[in-house]
Amino acid sequence: MIIVIRKGAEQSQIDNLLTLLRSRNIEPNVSKGAHQTVIGCVGDVAHLDPSLIEALDVVESVQRIQEPYKAANRRFHPDSTIIEAGEAKLGGGHFAVIAGPCSVESEEQIIQVAQAVKAAGATMLRGGAFKPRTSPYSFQGLGGEGLRMLSAAKRETGLPIVTELMDFKDIELFNDVDVIQIGARNMQNFNLLKEVGSYTKKPVLLKRGMSSTLQELLMSAEYIISSGNPNVILCERGIRTFETSTRNTLDLSVVPVLHRLTHLPIIVDPSHATGYAYLVEPVAVAATAIGADGLIIEVHNDPAHAKCDGVQSQTPQMFAETMQRINAVRSALN
Amino acid sequence: MIIVIRKGAEQSQIDNLLTLLRSRNIEPNVSKGAHQTVIGCVGDVAHLDPSLIEALDVVESVQRIQEPYKAANRRFHPDSTIIEAGEAKLGGGHFAVIAGPCSVESEEQIIQVAQAVKAAGATMLRGGAFKPRTSPYSFQGLGGEGLRMLSAAKRETGLPIVTELMDFKDIELFNDVDVIQIGARNMQNFNLLKEVGSYTKKPVLLKRGMSSTLQELLMSAEYIISSGNPNVILCERGIRTFETSTRNTLDLSVVPVLHRLTHLPIIVDPSHATGYAYLVEPVAVAATAIGADGLIIEVHNDPAHAKCDGVQSQTPQMFAETMQRINAVRSALN
Amino acid sequence: MIIVIRKGAEQSQIDNLLTLLRSRNIEPNVSKGAHQTVIGCVGDVAHLDPSLIEALDVVESVQRIQEPYKAANRRFHPDSTIIEAGEAKLGGGHFAVIAGPCSVESEEQIIQVAQAVKAAGATMLRGGAFKPRTSPYSFQGLGGEGLRMLSAAKRETGLPIVTELMDFKDIELFNDVDVIQIGARNMQNFNLLKEVGSYTKKPVLLKRGMSSTLQELLMSAEYIISSGNPNVILCERGIRTFETSTRNTLDLSVVPVLHRLTHLPIIVDPSHATGYAYLVEPVAVAATAIGADGLIIEVHNDPAHAKCDGVQSQTPQMFAETMQRINAVRSALN
Amino acid sequence: MIIVIRKGAEQSQIDNLLTLLRSRNIEPNVSKGAHQTVIGCVGDVAHLDPSLIEALDVVESVQRIQEPYKAANRRFHPDSTIIEAGEAKLGGGHFAVIAGPCSVESEEQIIQVAQAVKAAGATMLRGGAFKPRTSPYSFQGLGGEGLRMLSAAKRETGLPIVTELMDFKDIELFNDVDVIQIGARNMQNFNLLKEVGSYTKKPVLLKRGMSSTLQELLMSAEYIISSGNPNVILCERGIRTFETSTRNTLDLSVVPVLHRLTHLPIIVDPSHATGYAYLVEPVAVAATAIGADGLIIEVHNDPAHAKCDGVQSQTPQMFAETMQRINAVRSALN
Repeated sequence: MIIVIRKGAEQSQIDNLLTLLRSRNIEPNVSKGAHQTVIGCVGDVAHLDPSLIEALDVVESVQRIQEPYKAANRRFHPDSTIIEAGEAKLGGGHFAVIAGPCSVESEEQIIQVAQAVKAAGATMLRGGAFKPRTSPYSFQGLGGEGLRMLSAAKRETGLPIVTELMDFKDIELFNDVDVIQIGARNMQNFNLLKEVGSYTKKPVLLKRGMSSTLQELLMSAEYIISSGNPNVILCERGIRTFETSTRNTLDLSVVPVLHRLTHLPIIVDPSHATGYAYLVEPVAVAATAIGADGLIIEVHNDPAHAKCDGVQSQTPQMFAETMQRINAVRSALN
Repeated sequence: MIIVIRKGAEQSQIDNLLTLLRSRNIEPNVSKGAHQTVIGCVGDVAHLDPSLIEALDVVESVQRIQEPYKAANRRFHPDSTIIEAGEAKLGGGHFAVIAGPCSVESEEQIIQVAQAVKAAGATMLRGGAFKPRTSPYSFQGLGGEGLRMLSAAKRETGLPIVTELMDFKDIELFNDVDVIQIGARNMQNFNLLKEVGSYTKKPVLLKRGMSSTLQELLMSAEYIISSGNPNVILCERGIRTFETSTRNTLDLSVVPVLHRLTHLPIIVDPSHATGYAYLVEPVAVAATAIGADGLIIEVHNDPAHAKCDGVQSQTPQMFAETMQRINAVRSALN
Repeated sequence: MIIVIRKGAEQSQIDNLLTLLRSRNIEPNVSKGAHQTVIGCVGDVAHLDPSLIEALDVVESVQRIQEPYKAANRRFHPDSTIIEAGEAKLGGGHFAVIAGPCSVESEEQIIQVAQAVKAAGATMLRGGAFKPRTSPYSFQGLGGEGLRMLSAAKRETGLPIVTELMDFKDIELFNDVDVIQIGARNMQNFNLLKEVGSYTKKPVLLKRGMSSTLQELLMSAEYIISSGNPNVILCERGIRTFETSTRNTLDLSVVPVLHRLTHLPIIVDPSHATGYAYLVEPVAVAATAIGADGLIIEVHNDPAHAKCDGVQSQTPQMFAETMQRINAVRSALN
Repeated sequence: MIIVIRKGAEQSQIDNLLTLLRSRNIEPNVSKGAHQTVIGCVGDVAHLDPSLIEALDVVESVQRIQEPYKAANRRFHPDSTIIEAGEAKLGGGHFAVIAGPCSVESEEQIIQVAQAVKAAGATMLRGGAFKPRTSPYSFQGLGGEGLRMLSAAKRETGLPIVTELMDFKDIELFNDVDVIQIGARNMQNFNLLKEVGSYTKKPVLLKRGMSSTLQELLMSAEYIISSGNPNVILCERGIRTFETSTRNTLDLSVVPVLHRLTHLPIIVDPSHATGYAYLVEPVAVAATAIGADGLIIEVHNDPAHAKCDGVQSQTPQMFAETMQRINAVRSALN
């Protein structure tokens, strides 16, 4: 932490600040120049809120040097986390493809899609039962009934299931769920993060918020880990920018950045990132090439009549072709 | 709703689409050009999800003409909504100033601040008991104990209280609260919106999400209203952009835009929008000048030692001066 | 400048860096912690490019403490710059309103608008002769002929004229122009900035680029000043964000931020910021209230038939009413 | 083009609008509903400025259906453009890698880098002679002398050269240059686009502006093409967003979007997009996988002492390894 002292500060004020820092076990180091005085703090400052220091009269600004996350930080945990769900593994060299419809619509539908994506090489099944929709007038998902249908598809195919939890009061319906998804809109629903983190050690798939920095994403992971659950999968699904030719703007270069910052695995969602089925394959292939630990892809048996996100859903056949190109890239790069 | 037909579509496909639209009570109107065919739909399309149409093979793109919100729409409800809380009124010409600390820290503190802001002209008291913090290691608020202290300050001063609800399971602690705040990070926590909307008719202060469009803000208001509670106050508190010289980028021109789109009142939060105490007064004055129905301002008795947001908190004295300038502008413009 | 040393760096590498810094007259101050070593540099570092230091193997990151601009910096030039053009003054307490059409269309039109805006209280006349248009098929302005018409309007009304220079090769046509505008798209056309700065001491109105930070804006001003022309007016005209309900997002709180960072005057352009005539008045009033040194407003005698920007142009009557409200706010706040 | 009529418009006003449209050879098609009237225009509207229509009193809003670019539009020119420069080809299945230092520093340096990148498989040489720098105090490039050194490297290696033109007055120095680069900050320097487009048919490498939409990028290409030069290469180099962990945010999914919208080739610049050398390889590989027609990569013989952009420059050895992985991905996907 670097503290810049306000011009014209008195020595007694600076001394008070130094005393305060030392009382928090931080060793301050003062650099005094003609125009500026700065204090370098090199102890363990992760638990010191920089805004508390910045509020002091004598301080002009504070700049953090160390990352504020510890449990998610590769600096302190160099080995990559490997997530297991059923027979699938993800992270640390293991690659997983999660596929399935935006929302579960019927038992027949979800079993049919599950069989198709499994045949094509998917290792987990996704499907929404509780759907966060911008409009109260849009289809909100089948809820508990949808979860029951997902279980049927799991029994039928053996694929572990991934589905979104929007409200902790529904957690008991999630017993048969293998990976709990926290959606982009809930990435900073801190109560939900804490509740899920302390209730279960099941893998949690944490989607990056639409306008969240990497640091905020990692702080949200830190909420889950520090509540007791270290099994967090990060997911890049596009951020919001001025560009409207895609649904969101996929921020793909965060994959290698995150691999450097954290030991947690990172997957990519080409469906929500782009919003158009024709873009899913090229983006999925690029995400594989850049080193993502997995993908989550929307596949629907009949996109033209899907109850949501039909525009961005691949057909099972498109998905099978995409899997071939993904595998070709993986072979070429390993 | 305007539907652009894909080049090369067959007449039979177009006919099927027309039949589908008519079955939903929508009267389609076909415009056929050399290069392009478009279909104008002018019936009541608010309940038709455009993405369902866009997923059809024959469709190239869909553009909405009408706003997707009805209950919040000034087109259908021309009279401005007036919110009442205790003796304070907000909207439709009534101006309210909500002031108080980022977080309640002690009974003595909150009473002291409440008395100071009341004396300066504030009409409601704010104070956080449940605090959404980016880091799990930061102060998370005093919870129920904080609410009890707010009640004490309300008894002492008569000011109605405004405080944030993060989790619906805490709702019973909010009996004495006058205005329930939904924070920016929960603007699209749709379950929370529905639960609050159906539980109470108390005013709800809904803050705009960091990367939410006005339409999304109004759709979130629509969730609350359509669940049974029409008393929604909108709040602009800055959006996230590339500019880092302020904490967020205040999008002040949305005030007159929202006044045109909706009958709900709009207030501005200069403290979170800017992040610096020296910017609160000029921004508060500008927000008043542009026609906001009120302000919500962080005031702390001792900002340098506040448990959160000290950098952006005004002292009671600064607040009193700001109130004078706000009143001067209001007099000049009325 | 704060230099964070890479973990595992050898002492000899650090020593080399210290020698390098001292050779540039910078006094380094080393803070060594268990996990991190940082070096504070407190001499005059404005001419040292931080990216040169950051490229060194031994360095993890570099953070600037001091602003990289000197000539535009209020820290070194505390007195506000006052710009003069004809009888108009702008900055340091002087307020100027620049008004006129997006583009000059005929001599009759520009004289008529000039007379109307002068009568309403404008102190300078704007009008485009060279127009930067997104499409090569749109009206590109009347060029030199337009400048001649502006001169006629100046002779008729005495109002100093403000118009945009897009290409330095046209500079000789600008002899009668009082304030040379550099448009948002040319804010980082560094050659143009240097050429204008060294050719003339006439005031230069520098518009902030659509995605430029305040620091970049001030560095562009620094180009003009360091080339010889200290008479720079900064202009906020909206930045590009995800929000589409206005043409751009007006970043109004930069006005007091810039007043703190620089001695140069700052004006606001409500027409381009919002894109809609009905928003110009409320935004102009708010910009006045927040402390802008002036405004630049598009006024057209017949907006419905304007050759460009008709949607955002006020009529002379709307402008006259806006001037009254601007004056009311100025009186109230002074 | 879809025109939405303002509520309460009189029939005579609508009739006037219809007459106006027909006079421009546009066939209007009126859809009249209970709440809304819309007019579909399906003729050739590329030359009709929508803002002119939107300014009319009777009009509420205008939405474009057809893209406003014609010469760059794949709809009208289905065959991919193939660019030739020396022996290199780019586009329509031809892949080119442009490599070299941020700026030319000496003849020895540029020849050495040219030989190294050629040996590794680069097909063109880049090197800056005129440098657009944010600060007037930073190194501005060697200018004409730098161009002379690039020519020497071209003679030595046979590699065609790519370098940036900032000011048209320098064009005569560019006789030996094979590809003229227009930088991101000049993407909407419309005069420069027109001057270059009419002066030469040499390939022009047009970089996307930091906050430019794809449509604006294509309109800038349209400026060049409509001035006489059809040989335009588009370049994605990252856009500006709120995320600061990379220098810019690479918007990689625009590659397949652009391939659909335009016949012009698209290359990617991983160096400027990310700002860090360790990110160049993964991003370059991903760009190849997603279907880019080429790459432009900064390579420096001694990044730690580069005069600019050392942090993001690869060494020749890193570049050689990157080329191997690029080739592996290309083989796997073809």
